[in-house]
Amino acid sequence: MYELGVVYRNIKRAERSIADGLAQYGSATVHEAMGRVGLMKPYMRPIYAGAQVSGTAVTVLLQPGDNWMLHVVAEQIQPGDIVVAACTSENTDGFFGDLLATSFQVRGARALVIDAGCRDVRVLTEMGFPVWSRAISSKGTVKATLGSVNIPVVCAGALVHPGDVIVADDDGVVCVPAAMAQKTLEAAAAREANEGDKRAKLAAGVLGLDMYKMREPLAKAGLRYID
Amino acid sequence: MYELGVVYRNIKRAERSIADGLAQYGSATVHEAMGRVGLMKPYMRPIYAGAQVSGTAVTVLLQPGDNWMLHVVAEQIQPGDIVVAACTSENTDGFFGDLLATSFQVRGARALVIDAGCRDVRVLTEMGFPVWSRAISSKGTVKATLGSVNIPVVCAGALVHPGDVIVADDDGVVCVPAAMAQKTLEAAAAREANEGDKRAKLAAGVLGLDMYKMREPLAKAGLRYID
Amino acid sequence: MYELGVVYRNIKRAERSIADGLAQYGSATVHEAMGRVGLMKPYMRPIYAGAQVSGTAVTVLLQPGDNWMLHVVAEQIQPGDIVVAACTSENTDGFFGDLLATSFQVRGARALVIDAGCRDVRVLTEMGFPVWSRAISSKGTVKATLGSVNIPVVCAGALVHPGDVIVADDDGVVCVPAAMAQKTLEAAAAREANEGDKRAKLAAGVLGLDMYKMREPLAKAGLRYID
Amino acid sequence: MYELGVVYRNIKRAERSIADGLAQYGSATVHEAMGRVGLMKPYMRPIYAGAQVSGTAVTVLLQPGDNWMLHVVAEQIQPGDIVVAACTSENTDGFFGDLLATSFQVRGARALVIDAGCRDVRVLTEMGFPVWSRAISSKGTVKATLGSVNIPVVCAGALVHPGDVIVADDDGVVCVPAAMAQKTLEAAAAREANEGDKRAKLAAGVLGLDMYKMREPLAKAGLRYID
Amino acid sequence: MYELGVVYRNIKRAERSIADGLAQYGSATVHEAMGRVGLMKPYMRPIYAGAQVSGTAVTVLLQPGDNWMLHVVAEQIQPGDIVVAACTSENTDGFFGDLLATSFQVRGARALVIDAGCRDVRVLTEMGFPVWSRAISSKGTVKATLGSVNIPVVCAGALVHPGDVIVADDDGVVCVPAAMAQKTLEAAAAREANEGDKRAKLAAGVLGLDMYKMREPLAKAGLRYID
Amino acid sequence: MYELGVVYRNIKRAERSIADGLAQYGSATVHEAMGRVGLMKPYMRPIYAGAQVSGTAVTVLLQPGDNWMLHVVAEQIQPGDIVVAACTSENTDGFFGDLLATSFQVRGARALVIDAGCRDVRVLTEMGFPVWSRAISSKGTVKATLGSVNIPVVCAGALVHPGDVIVADDDGVVCVPAAMAQKTLEAAAAREANEGDKRAKLAAGVLGLDMYKMREPLAKAGLRYID
Repeated sequence: MYELGVVYRNIKRAERSIADGLAQYGSATVHEAMGRVGLMKPYMRPIYAGAQVSGTAVTVLLQPGDNWMLHVVAEQIQPGDIVVAACTSENTDGFFGDLLATSFQVRGARALVIDAGCRDVRVLTEMGFPVWSRAISSKGTVKATLGSVNIPVVCAGALVHPGDVIVADDDGVVCVPAAMAQKTLEAAAAREANEGDKRAKLAAGVLGLDMYKMREPLAKAGLRYID
Repeated sequence: MYELGVVYRNIKRAERSIADGLAQYGSATVHEAMGRVGLMKPYMRPIYAGAQVSGTAVTVLLQPGDNWMLHVVAEQIQPGDIVVAACTSENTDGFFGDLLATSFQVRGARALVIDAGCRDVRVLTEMGFPVWSRAISSKGTVKATLGSVNIPVVCAGALVHPGDVIVADDDGVVCVPAAMAQKTLEAAAAREANEGDKRAKLAAGVLGLDMYKMREPLAKAGLRYID
Repeated sequence: MYELGVVYRNIKRAERSIADGLAQYGSATVHEAMGRVGLMKPYMRPIYAGAQVSGTAVTVLLQPGDNWMLHVVAEQIQPGDIVVAACTSENTDGFFGDLLATSFQVRGARALVIDAGCRDVRVLTEMGFPVWSRAISSKGTVKATLGSVNIPVVCAGALVHPGDVIVADDDGVVCVPAAMAQKTLEAAAAREANEGDKRAKLAAGVLGLDMYKMREPLAKAGLRYID
Repeated sequence: MYELGVVYRNIKRAERSIADGLAQYGSATVHEAMGRVGLMKPYMRPIYAGAQVSGTAVTVLLQPGDNWMLHVVAEQIQPGDIVVAACTSENTDGFFGDLLATSFQVRGARALVIDAGCRDVRVLTEMGFPVWSRAISSKGTVKATLGSVNIPVVCAGALVHPGDVIVADDDGVVCVPAAMAQKTLEAAAAREANEGDKRAKLAAGVLGLDMYKMREPLAKAGLRYID
Repeated sequence: MYELGVVYRNIKRAERSIADGLAQYGSATVHEAMGRVGLMKPYMRPIYAGAQVSGTAVTVLLQPGDNWMLHVVAEQIQPGDIVVAACTSENTDGFFGDLLATSFQVRGARALVIDAGCRDVRVLTEMGFPVWSRAISSKGTVKATLGSVNIPVVCAGALVHPGDVIVADDDGVVCVPAAMAQKTLEAAAAREANEGDKRAKLAAGVLGLDMYKMREPLAKAGLRYID
Repeated sequence: MYELGVVYRNIKRAERSIADGLAQYGSATVHEAMGRVGLMKPYMRPIYAGAQVSGTAVTVLLQPGDNWMLHVVAEQIQPGDIVVAACTSENTDGFFGDLLATSFQVRGARALVIDAGCRDVRVLTEMGFPVWSRAISSKGTVKATLGSVNIPVVCAGALVHPGDVIVADDDGVVCVPAAMAQKTLEAAAAREANEGDKRAKLAAGVLGLDMYKMREPLAKAGLRYID
């Protein structure tokens, strides 16, 4: 699957306005809007609470304990990108810290999503550069072995192609394939419009059982009430 | 053990004043007051820091990836309840989000304790609706298979009967059987009274070794000091 | 390896000014300055964000579910110490809470690093007494079996001798052997001085690829760019 | 939930012939026959392959790192029993080895199910004394703190009352409440009778899609075939 | 990424002779021959030791706790296939047992690779039908929600397209994209030819240090020998 | 703690007859004989059942995903040694396979203990070269970064000095410091002598409660029997 030692310079990014527009809906709504697919595993956690972003994926494949390719990917970042870093084996080392973040941020990256470890989290928090990672670790890395940039990667169980849209918040990280981004944006907007109404009804005391008309299918499935 | 497809509507809740009174002592003191039993496993974590609650348990048994029964349990909530959700197998999907929380909150639920995943954590935090869960995940769920409501469940390793008292805070979640609630409240109060005095002594520099008269038993157990 | 049932009263601590001086550099820089060794495993997490400390290690070996030796170690604390607690088997019980913290703090301890669980985290946060632990748990412990104080211990995968310097922050926990402390302090200072300059360059848009002169070695390793 | 420091000597065991009869069906069939409940978590693994047993539960609650109560429970064993050991916190120490196994075996125990560690597995294999455990570990334990014998326990997520029937094999461990044992035996027998016929059809090339008449419900659920 | 509710009936399988030819080299050699990519995570373990297979992938995406689609995929199996089953969230339930195995085997499937649980392992072992899974569990599943068949899936971290070649043995599971299969087979054969010679030299006492000419690069990297 | 890039050629091994003599007692008895210390974590498992060895430790520190130093350590092996490999961060890659095993075996190594992954397990089993590892994985490694040979290492939580005695079997792996080896051998022999007698008594139906005279201390601790 993976091609090693290559950097693809020209990738087709999802349309900017669509990629930007998905952030407001958050990962849970976007994941529903896509039909409940495309989610990274829940071990991916933000280094600080409250960040909610979307952007176009620039991908990088790392080797365990080696962050050389993060320097290579920096050059490929364009404003509005989110760097998505996969690793060829499970590793929790601190591949990314405040120096790389400075470089990523000045080039316009909005976030890093890394299926490995991150460090300097206090400074990253102060910089307002969000990272979703599987671990936080002071462990440094070497620069000795090639991976690749802008090839399709599997990151935390999700397949990400360069140019796909990434949506990340406190609930997790979703990847929206570029070809599905427009449709997903519309579905998310429709869903959200719908949700305000539902929330008002529920807040007024209407039960989901009635609002969603669940009583009949529940009875049909055999649910019994016992007093 | 588990009966599937049933909802018990009439449960005997622990007395309100006792259930409410336990919150102030926190899970660690209550756990000690009960004789160090009744604790859920420490993988159960609050979605935000600082919440400290107690209430009467309304229980629900879920199927993996299926949150249908959370809609069913909503109707059984009374003010002062805490919903305790177990799952028939290990699952981290996001069974619960802001819409269900709106419904739970308006019916008077104080919290959700769920041995599975939760989502919309930013909104839940803003709403002040605390959740203790094993995971946070955007992953949505289906509504297809029955579980049960208000049967005894094993949640994160602890047996919970409907009507038992749940005490939860940053340290974890304890279940106090309804029949032990009064006695536990008294023991917790006694313990706490005691603690203020101990804290003052320790703050004044008295060693636990002396305050708890440990030097003799330590010596008897064979402890040697080497200079 | 371990000697059980002994308390070494006289340990040789790393020099105070050196031990104190390492805090400002943080665990990631110190870990680099040591040559990327000496790090505890990343499952060791602070109970609250933002604490950054260094100090001399006082060590204690615990038995699972038994915190007796934490009372013994309290007496051996001197101002500027950090208590490092290992356990003879993997255990997540809440060995340490606000009473012990009061005692540790009044004797001058700056932190606890424990390869087990901790409780009363809300109060510890209010007290400003930081703890790095593998778990948070209300589960209490007994006082029945001897361990040891001030013997070399393996804590979360790192070997710690009494008197070594511990550096801990949001990124993790590093142990600097007393004999390497002076050299490490100098290396950390040099590194940090260096970092300001690098950060300025990166913030100005210079790429790490150029700043670190990586283009040639990358090409030599076979990296290919594809348009 | 748990009462500490007590040994119940008189427990009501499920009827012998029923308890014995369940072994032949194995844990998967029995679990289905009960309605898919009562299963221990899948981290419980046999120390050797091929054992398939059933018997009446004698329960014991252990403290972490302390196997004192295993000596106490030995006296309560009757021929045809299976000892079920829970622990008050997660622990992988080797609570049980060949000496205790000799004692258990001579008293008629058929197996041990322990939510903790086991050791001497080569000898236990030679003795033909099967153990289902969460870990294998040489780590010895102390004898210092009381637990209880023959109280209801939660073992690996399953509630077990003394006298319930335990069924264990390579697939895992199921607990059948004594009151459900007769009905479960009948349901398992019916299921098994049924399975032979199904197996023959499938072996002859009939598809489950047809045998279980799934094509219509699948189409109704929206399944589309694409050539 | 995932399309739900669809079954692709016509997939392009890698050439039979190539798919068959890869088994003899095993997963480690094939993984090297591909350039160290394409491997599933090491939590995927065989249910019995000694099986070594290769075949063409037929893929299926499952929902947690629901094995409906395994019946659907059975119909799509052709002789020489290996079924690769992914799940939309992490789940250890026993999706697959001896009845499905009978059906798979009669249709010519060589193995199942499932990122979830499996049961009836004793019978599967007797039948000689190998399964690589993340868990073994008696837990049964429902048949209520659609997944898909023969779409690209991420299974245990590896991207698998229908028709790719799967190689599995005691060391793990590798996916070889159909387009790379021929080249990989040649590289594996070359590697293996080479290995016999190396093994003979090493068995004769030649050191890898000399055989691979490592002494110079080690010295250059700074390795020092101390007597 | 760790010194990188060095190979210590002259180490002081524990006396051969003592190192050899410990194998017969197994890891559990040796661990008890040492006072219940020195054990590696129970995630270290043998790649095949039934091996029981002891030998003198030759140590190696590896970098994640890099097995270069295993070739370096091969040259330092003497007959009767066991190679103990630690890694600077958690890693499950397959560092070791049949070629290295051939080399290790011809030089007289009895086993490998590696806190990382291993591959070619079927061939290693046929060769009779036992490995205790944290994982099995086909994932290959690079040869790019230096570690060290024959420095003290922490392997799976246990401190191992070059020349210490390693005892490994189905129950796990213990490290006996060279200085304690003689005393430990005697204590293990005494313990074992003792065990035969105990086993006979227990097999004759004497209870541990009586043999170890536990009834009085249990009563004193408050144990109550309830009929």
